[in-house]
Amino acid sequence: MAQKLKVAIIGSGNWGSAISKIIGNNVKLHPDIFQEDVNMWVFQEQVDGKNLTDIINEKHENVKYLPGIPLPENIHAVSDVKETASGANILVFVLPHQFVYKVCESLKDVISPDCKAISLIKGLDFQDNNLTLFSEEIEKILGISCACLSGANIASEVAEEKFGETTIAAKTEEDGKIFEKLFHTPNFDVKIINDHVGVEVCGSLKNVIAIGAGICDGLDYGNNTKAAVIRRGLLEMRKFGKTFFGGVRTETFFESCGVADLITTCAGGRNRKVAAAFINSGKSIDEIEKEMLNGQKLQGTTTALEVHRFLESKNMTDEFPLMTAIYRIVYEGAPPELLAENLRTRKF
Amino acid sequence: MAQKLKVAIIGSGNWGSAISKIIGNNVKLHPDIFQEDVNMWVFQEQVDGKNLTDIINEKHENVKYLPGIPLPENIHAVSDVKETASGANILVFVLPHQFVYKVCESLKDVISPDCKAISLIKGLDFQDNNLTLFSEEIEKILGISCACLSGANIASEVAEEKFGETTIAAKTEEDGKIFEKLFHTPNFDVKIINDHVGVEVCGSLKNVIAIGAGICDGLDYGNNTKAAVIRRGLLEMRKFGKTFFGGVRTETFFESCGVADLITTCAGGRNRKVAAAFINSGKSIDEIEKEMLNGQKLQGTTTALEVHRFLESKNMTDEFPLMTAIYRIVYEGAPPELLAENLRTRKF
Repeated sequence: MAQKLKVAIIGSGNWGSAISKIIGNNVKLHPDIFQEDVNMWVFQEQVDGKNLTDIINEKHENVKYLPGIPLPENIHAVSDVKETASGANILVFVLPHQFVYKVCESLKDVISPDCKAISLIKGLDFQDNNLTLFSEEIEKILGISCACLSGANIASEVAEEKFGETTIAAKTEEDGKIFEKLFHTPNFDVKIINDHVGVEVCGSLKNVIAIGAGICDGLDYGNNTKAAVIRRGLLEMRKFGKTFFGGVRTETFFESCGVADLITTCAGGRNRKVAAAFINSGKSIDEIEKEMLNGQKLQGTTTALEVHRFLESKNMTDEFPLMTAIYRIVYEGAPPELLAENLRTRKF
Repeated sequence: MAQKLKVAIIGSGNWGSAISKIIGNNVKLHPDIFQEDVNMWVFQEQVDGKNLTDIINEKHENVKYLPGIPLPENIHAVSDVKETASGANILVFVLPHQFVYKVCESLKDVISPDCKAISLIKGLDFQDNNLTLFSEEIEKILGISCACLSGANIASEVAEEKFGETTIAAKTEEDGKIFEKLFHTPNFDVKIINDHVGVEVCGSLKNVIAIGAGICDGLDYGNNTKAAVIRRGLLEMRKFGKTFFGGVRTETFFESCGVADLITTCAGGRNRKVAAAFINSGKSIDEIEKEMLNGQKLQGTTTALEVHRFLESKNMTDEFPLMTAIYRIVYEGAPPELLAENLRTRKF
């Protein structure tokens, strides 16, 4: 390989910081392929009167979003996103989806055409009753190819180096080999596939299904119903991908990004937890989110709303009875029993 | 239909009693198809000085194995298995697998050739390093066709009429229609498929995978590892079915008998619980089973042992690294860390 690849990480929250630990170590393990120094974009904040970037660069720890986990010293926190990405050959996008457009627009002019990206962003983009995948949005705006990574990856457990698996959808075999070297460790087992639609649809819709699992728990429906919700969720996710994006493969649902991530999200996770509390509270979902999440919005409820609007515009809500029930219970005050009602006698 | 079908239930434990509630009600809903009276074989026991059969027939409750749940009055407890099955057109086998041979042998002479069976038995039969499915054993001994039923069906929740799903593999479309009428209710959603191998392999091997999930929990490995164990378990179950039984279909793993039942068994259930305790105890699995199960054996550990002997005889233990790790940890004193070790770098 002629040129050593420079990696930049765009984002530094809980997941971004956990992944920076892996990337920082892996580039050192492959000095023939990667440059050692890795920039990480940090949205500047003050912590105890100091810049978060300064703290990260001095203490090698993201004290705000991943406290207690030492980061490799070759990870450099940078507050300017253009400076972060300048000269990079690989961009790792790991930031909340609402920031994607603004960040990509500002990077447009500094990106070299041979740069590649990988998206760790969860969510689908809904605009004007149309929906797209974030990897495709990044490709469109920056004019570069974009892979994606998703799996049963609770950030804190990845940071603590507990064993887990993940799935990367790469556009070419060569890209796959590079991303495997950048992310794979003995405790973060990377599998490369070529179905980016499946990976992103799973990563996004699992949060909607987890709301359904939380409704189950809130109603004390038991394990049989919850297993039915997860199973139907898996099938609606697949149907959604096949119907609206074409290329989703059944095998992808057997990968970590598929069934494994769905199980983890429906077993724990805040989407499930908040939905269970919502059922028991008699309050609106907005109130509950305010109380439990300090004003943040759940990804699952937001996505449920957007998916529903999209399905309504296509006149296809009946084709996705589980996601439709979840939407109606959360946003239209439908009785929670609609969940089981909508699973009955619908053969999937 | 010329003749009304007479149904007999062979078995009356927790699951047998729960299913008798459904059958008793459903035959009354379809008087054009089924005879109203249903015999249920009860292994005779004394409860407070009275015959269990008498208690069931007087109180309409199986006070020993499903207390608190009223059974339909058209379910008749019978202590003689030949008498139970005499004249039956449909036999529902729902008894511990170790009794199957003896019971089938004793039924041989009383079964009419147009009788059909359905097996709710979990487990595979291993003899002389060979393994077979119980539905096929029943077919062989009795010379009649045998369907099977399995799903994410915790018996107590089915008995309480909480919503759940199940899967029936039927040999013909006509059989499927009859079994759907016999078992389907608004809260016990039956799906008919035609892959009996998939249904029975899932129903049996899920208990082995649940031992792996319990080892994870015992080691406090976290959600990412546990999701990986469940995912790999699903793939090893599929590979096992494909390698040794031919006809297993990928779609079957998306049914209730597949992913849903596996999730339920790995989330709760005694296989998982006992395995977690085993890891933390430093005692042998035999001791732990004695302490926790009153001398009963776990289905998961027994099946793990039998599967391992079978794989060894085929020289194929390396092809099933998860089930092999579970066996070695439970029976050979291998360090529990072998679980993650055997998942690493094996691409499934």
